[in-house]
Amino acid sequence: MTSEVKIVECVPNFSEGRDLEKIEKIVAPLKNQQDVKLVNYEADPDYNRLVVTVMGEPQAVKKAVLEAIVAATELIDLNHHQGEHLRMGATDVVPFIPIRNMSMAETVELAREMGQAIYERCAVPVFLYEEAASRPERKNLVTIRKGQFEGMAEKLKQDDWEPDFGKREIHATAGVTAVGARMPLIAYNIDLGTDNLDIANAIARSIRQSGGGFQYIKAGGVELKEKGIVQVTMNITDYRKNPIYRIFETVKMEAMRYGVPVLGSEIIGLAPLEALTDTAAYYLGLHDFDSSKLIETALIE
Amino acid sequence: MTSEVKIVECVPNFSEGRDLEKIEKIVAPLKNQQDVKLVNYEADPDYNRLVVTVMGEPQAVKKAVLEAIVAATELIDLNHHQGEHLRMGATDVVPFIPIRNMSMAETVELAREMGQAIYERCAVPVFLYEEAASRPERKNLVTIRKGQFEGMAEKLKQDDWEPDFGKREIHATAGVTAVGARMPLIAYNIDLGTDNLDIANAIARSIRQSGGGFQYIKAGGVELKEKGIVQVTMNITDYRKNPIYRIFETVKMEAMRYGVPVLGSEIIGLAPLEALTDTAAYYLGLHDFDSSKLIETALIE
Repeated sequence: MTSEVKIVECVPNFSEGRDLEKIEKIVAPLKNQQDVKLVNYEADPDYNRLVVTVMGEPQAVKKAVLEAIVAATELIDLNHHQGEHLRMGATDVVPFIPIRNMSMAETVELAREMGQAIYERCAVPVFLYEEAASRPERKNLVTIRKGQFEGMAEKLKQDDWEPDFGKREIHATAGVTAVGARMPLIAYNIDLGTDNLDIANAIARSIRQSGGGFQYIKAGGVELKEKGIVQVTMNITDYRKNPIYRIFETVKMEAMRYGVPVLGSEIIGLAPLEALTDTAAYYLGLHDFDSSKLIETALIE
Repeated sequence: MTSEVKIVECVPNFSEGRDLEKIEKIVAPLKNQQDVKLVNYEADPDYNRLVVTVMGEPQAVKKAVLEAIVAATELIDLNHHQGEHLRMGATDVVPFIPIRNMSMAETVELAREMGQAIYERCAVPVFLYEEAASRPERKNLVTIRKGQFEGMAEKLKQDDWEPDFGKREIHATAGVTAVGARMPLIAYNIDLGTDNLDIANAIARSIRQSGGGFQYIKAGGVELKEKGIVQVTMNITDYRKNPIYRIFETVKMEAMRYGVPVLGSEIIGLAPLEALTDTAAYYLGLHDFDSSKLIETALIE
């Protein structure tokens, strides 16, 4: 037992959401591995896409996910792939997310190691994206994926699109893969006691980065017709820099301007423990608190 | 992976805090066990006592701790034991604490199984205490332990003191053991912006059970001379029924009466995750939140 065990999450997306036999072969290397936990995998037939979540010790995760990528490279032929989700590779994207005792710098290094390994094992060219990006215009995955599988062979020959790993030549059946590093994203909604969507939109604009607000907030207004209320709906892309409580209190403060009460809020999907304990620590004015003071921490480490 | 994995904590106390060789032999059965995590063990030479914390799957924990108790029974002779801490057995107390997906009823059942097993394997009589107690006057460990090892042989012969497991006869060298079940205890202090101890005492009285306040709060006032402030210091013995935020807000409300600000608070030692996430959920008005929404939960289960 040590308090320094590093935990990374990895969420590889594969371009196969229909053939269950192939899906099982892709996830097989992620099952029953020492120091790697297969959290879940979901195949979407319409998207024709498989989203896998694993967590564990960084090198063990890298190794196991690489084997899944080798399987996907052998099994998936993008020349015969159709689905509603944009894609450019058999293994489309491989984001790494720091969960415990890991800096973003370490996560970026892991992504680079993975990019190198994918090219060496599979001869699939790799672009690095988000925090791992080698240049600013490659931060956004959308920019990298533009043109999709069908346009990639040509795109790689353009001046700006030499891959970070590999040659200017797509893998004939598996295309191109993007490997990235990013903070865990928190999908968070705040309920307003009004049915006036303009107010939710105005508050969303005031808190989001594109409106001059918080750097790591993407927000909009949305109407919940059946409840007769509106929400400020958002993604928090770095909860360490823009903590939940700060966003919540700011929305409360802005809502006051319209005489509108904040009714509550909700987290959609998963959130890192630290985001919640940090919120509790803020409201209680807790000093010297961190997640090592939680009983359950002994089970993680 | 399932979300129903049960986790219990067990904190056996052994009457040996000086002989490192014996201490290692007692904890040996708790090391490197499947589904059991030895969280820590601390020996106090003045108390002449060893406090061990383990966590894991209930039956695996019971089995491993029983082996530690067998070792302690063989190694410790209370006829030659001296120390500052009260004690009545080589294995003095064995509390079980529900951590995840476990009701108190299940924890009590585990304690009863352990009591039975201790008598069968070691011929040490067992009293059940706290939530596992077979009658109200045995809830309090202090009452059970009164008379200590030296007085136990006689105490067991009294009408009211037939053990829950075993005969009315102490183990000649290992005495008597108490096995119990209780909620995790949270040691929690709230800082007041005054040096007036009377105010801390008055607030402590107003929130604690013995003063007519909350059922699961034991509280007092204490002076922090070097900081020039006072604290309301407390144990929360059931955080599900008396959640932290409610105590904190009540103390804030009472402090207002004296024109005293609440400066912050602190958790001493460990707290269960749920106590903190529940606090965050209260302040954010989170709906549908529980710990299964934490990324790290997948690693525990």
